[in-house]
Amino acid sequence: MKAVVIDSGTITSAKGFLAGATRAGLKTKGGLDLGILCSEVPCTTAGLFTVNRIKAAPVLLCQNHLADSRARAIVVNAGCANACTGEQGMADAEEMAHLVAKKLGIAVEDVLVASTGVIGKALPMELVARGIERVALSREGGHDLAQAITTTDTFAKERAVVLKLEGKEIAIGGIAKGAGMIHPNLATLLCFLATDAALEPGFLKRALREAVDVSFNMITIDGDTSPNDTVLLLANGLAGNATISEGTREAKTFIQALTEVCIYLARCIARDGEGATKLIEVTVEGALSLDDARVAARTIAGSPLVKAAIYGNDPNWGRIIAALGRSGAEVEEAKIDLFLKNICLMERGSPHPFDRDEASNALKDKEVPVKVRLNLGEARATAWGCDLTEEYVKINAEYMT
Amino acid sequence: MKAVVIDSGTITSAKGFLAGATRAGLKTKGGLDLGILCSEVPCTTAGLFTVNRIKAAPVLLCQNHLADSRARAIVVNAGCANACTGEQGMADAEEMAHLVAKKLGIAVEDVLVASTGVIGKALPMELVARGIERVALSREGGHDLAQAITTTDTFAKERAVVLKLEGKEIAIGGIAKGAGMIHPNLATLLCFLATDAALEPGFLKRALREAVDVSFNMITIDGDTSPNDTVLLLANGLAGNATISEGTREAKTFIQALTEVCIYLARCIARDGEGATKLIEVTVEGALSLDDARVAARTIAGSPLVKAAIYGNDPNWGRIIAALGRSGAEVEEAKIDLFLKNICLMERGSPHPFDRDEASNALKDKEVPVKVRLNLGEARATAWGCDLTEEYVKINAEYMT
Repeated sequence: MKAVVIDSGTITSAKGFLAGATRAGLKTKGGLDLGILCSEVPCTTAGLFTVNRIKAAPVLLCQNHLADSRARAIVVNAGCANACTGEQGMADAEEMAHLVAKKLGIAVEDVLVASTGVIGKALPMELVARGIERVALSREGGHDLAQAITTTDTFAKERAVVLKLEGKEIAIGGIAKGAGMIHPNLATLLCFLATDAALEPGFLKRALREAVDVSFNMITIDGDTSPNDTVLLLANGLAGNATISEGTREAKTFIQALTEVCIYLARCIARDGEGATKLIEVTVEGALSLDDARVAARTIAGSPLVKAAIYGNDPNWGRIIAALGRSGAEVEEAKIDLFLKNICLMERGSPHPFDRDEASNALKDKEVPVKVRLNLGEARATAWGCDLTEEYVKINAEYMT
Repeated sequence: MKAVVIDSGTITSAKGFLAGATRAGLKTKGGLDLGILCSEVPCTTAGLFTVNRIKAAPVLLCQNHLADSRARAIVVNAGCANACTGEQGMADAEEMAHLVAKKLGIAVEDVLVASTGVIGKALPMELVARGIERVALSREGGHDLAQAITTTDTFAKERAVVLKLEGKEIAIGGIAKGAGMIHPNLATLLCFLATDAALEPGFLKRALREAVDVSFNMITIDGDTSPNDTVLLLANGLAGNATISEGTREAKTFIQALTEVCIYLARCIARDGEGATKLIEVTVEGALSLDDARVAARTIAGSPLVKAAIYGNDPNWGRIIAALGRSGAEVEEAKIDLFLKNICLMERGSPHPFDRDEASNALKDKEVPVKVRLNLGEARATAWGCDLTEEYVKINAEYMT
């Protein structure tokens, strides 16, 4: 059975997951900024984290607490990243886990912590502690939690799907936040996923890696990578299915559904890039290797000159080819075809005559598909990005420290 | 003897070099856009070119014509890059060399060609041919040539120095253009250097590589690399010195002077980045290896979030550390010191208390020095960049194709 999207679905659409959020007072612009996700029973859990060598305290804590692939709750705050905060930062992250463990009556090792916001500032722990105390958990709390993790995002990112596996209904829900400091890998800042499926721990990890590789690792907003990037997947098994392990038909179906959720959330993040007005979808086909296809698609989607041209509705396709050329992917200029939507701009390495107005109009859409055919091999990849606008500069020149 | 800067020096400050420029009608905004540099006698010549896999036709022509390390003239145009132009582009580049060879009565293989401007458009060869015919060469023509190669540059970049080697006066002059699509390697778009020194060909090549490595390869404006990047160094030997070869004291003195010229021009390019209001100078000290120091300095100088914060006079130092962390350089968070001018922002991995107003004021200068001490080893490197402004976006959203 194909996965079906749940109307207004969110992370608590999966059975046995509760969530809630509150305003602790960490985000200067106001709004919910602290939340908790909790499962009624312990979960098999996998995490993927920033490749930045500077890792925020909560990332180090998660890596530590996930040694046993088990967790039951996540506490998360926005407004302060608790990164570059030295030993105090580590103590604060541990204190957050401790407070939530006490509140929920669970083991501190079963609590994961995530933070996002300004780097280099200590968490105001009194506000955090009072916030944790106030959070009320409910089955509908996923929506509030999705709001609470946003920073410069203009909308909350949520998605849930349901699928049937051997007669059992299985749900996968997720929330994410993005907006800035977004680049592979991991391009997500924060993403939490929850499922009620029963999954073998090794398979869970591989499924997450596979879904993230074609989603969060294929979006780019500004080329910067955050010290806080965290993707967590919790599986509590309450759907009652026979535990899914690698190599089975069920495994394949599950990965497909998980990937759908991740791609949806990743596209939301790209579309909601800081100051963005458009989603750019770059597909590279005919590459010699998957790595080549991936790096080429990402480099084009991340090129500031391509992004600025698309913002200006300017079919300046030479910039796309220049970005492709510097990507490191194997290319032969005389074999390249380039399309903007269905308009051919370059054919076999030579400029292809096109109607400038038609091309410029195609760029006015909210979604701009760019396709490059390298005509060298069979590999294919898609990356997502957004246009570069004056607003991006404004947001980041004025984001207060 | 230390090299002395020549007042209003330019590329024709070196003996025996003539230059001139004209308006051929290639730049839509008007102004000089086609020029020629010529030496009275054949030159030992070295070139460094874009690492983009998509190479413009003039780059391929130069690589071909430099097989014998010999050249006598350069013809260059702005307004049209003659890149991504297929076989027609190659034929046009060859025709440019041919026309100049005929005009000057020299061998076509001794003519080098460079182009800069819009990618993916064929050169209007009638305008180019008439332009080449019109160019008048003179000893003062370097200034016009420097103007003719500019595109979105707001000022021409020129420099010349003179030094004495064993009683002979030796001059080195250079011009460059930059502004956009600027990133290592080579971050220059176009730079032409001329000296009247006599140099052994192998040494000439090494000297150029060494000077470029710490100058044009250490600037970044937008992370994009052009298919046209070209640095050429012509040495005609008219100073009458004994030919300089590797490993000598003279060689060292020459490299030092050449490097000074290149760093001056590279800083001009960074300062004049599209839309820039400030020059950012990032020095990384105490790295484990030179590669680490270089990549760390360049990554920080190129981070859009760092650039936007500096534009906004915001001492958001967490972004500097985040960029450092993703650079790939070996770092230990607990050992990092960070300075903005002389203000310490981070000490041994922990936030260092600082006066926010003082730091914000320091960012208002036209030159912003950032220093990172990794405290791991002895290697050191400096990179230059510029701030990211709304104007950058405007220029590149409206740059016409």
